[in-house]
Amino acid sequence: MNVAFIPITDSEVELLESVEPDGPIAKYIEKRGEGIQHIAFRVDDINQCLAELKEKGVRLIDQTPRHGAGGAKIAFIHPKETNGALVEICERD
Amino acid sequence: MNVAFIPITDSEVELLESVEPDGPIAKYIEKRGEGIQHIAFRVDDINQCLAELKEKGVRLIDQTPRHGAGGAKIAFIHPKETNGALVEICERD
Repeated sequence: MNVAFIPITDSEVELLESVEPDGPIAKYIEKRGEGIQHIAFRVDDINQCLAELKEKGVRLIDQTPRHGAGGAKIAFIHPKETNGALVEICERD
Repeated sequence: MNVAFIPITDSEVELLESVEPDGPIAKYIEKRGEGIQHIAFRVDDINQCLAELKEKGVRLIDQTPRHGAGGAKIAFIHPKETNGALVEICERD
């Protein structure tokens, strides 16, 4: 996918464009339309954060971090835990 | 509606709960489900920002600012201009 980051103070807006007709972003847009897909919170230590979430019984999409754009380690919380809002946690240097 | 702000660095997560079954948030949730409703950008001068958007031909939901939570002046851009993402601009002391 193509990704652009637009920095705004110490947050960023991330724009996602699929380059494959059956990629995850293309599938998401086909199912739900364009719009706001998720929000992400940067953490200092994603492994520690995932451990805390698991300890609290929070369901996760990613049990372990995977690679995200810009060299980040990312993981998604299950949207059922957050009333349908897709939430990512992200560790980046 | 009930509103809670959760500050995160210099951004905030705003939680919205309807207290009326036919209020705007209740209607939104009935139509689209719970989830991320909009993103807001704080500006120094909302009237100047609206004038710039109008000059560029950007369609607006609010032609003039209205009152938002926490004493803010707010206005929404038409989501057709932003690929379905509902975007608010906000001026707050």
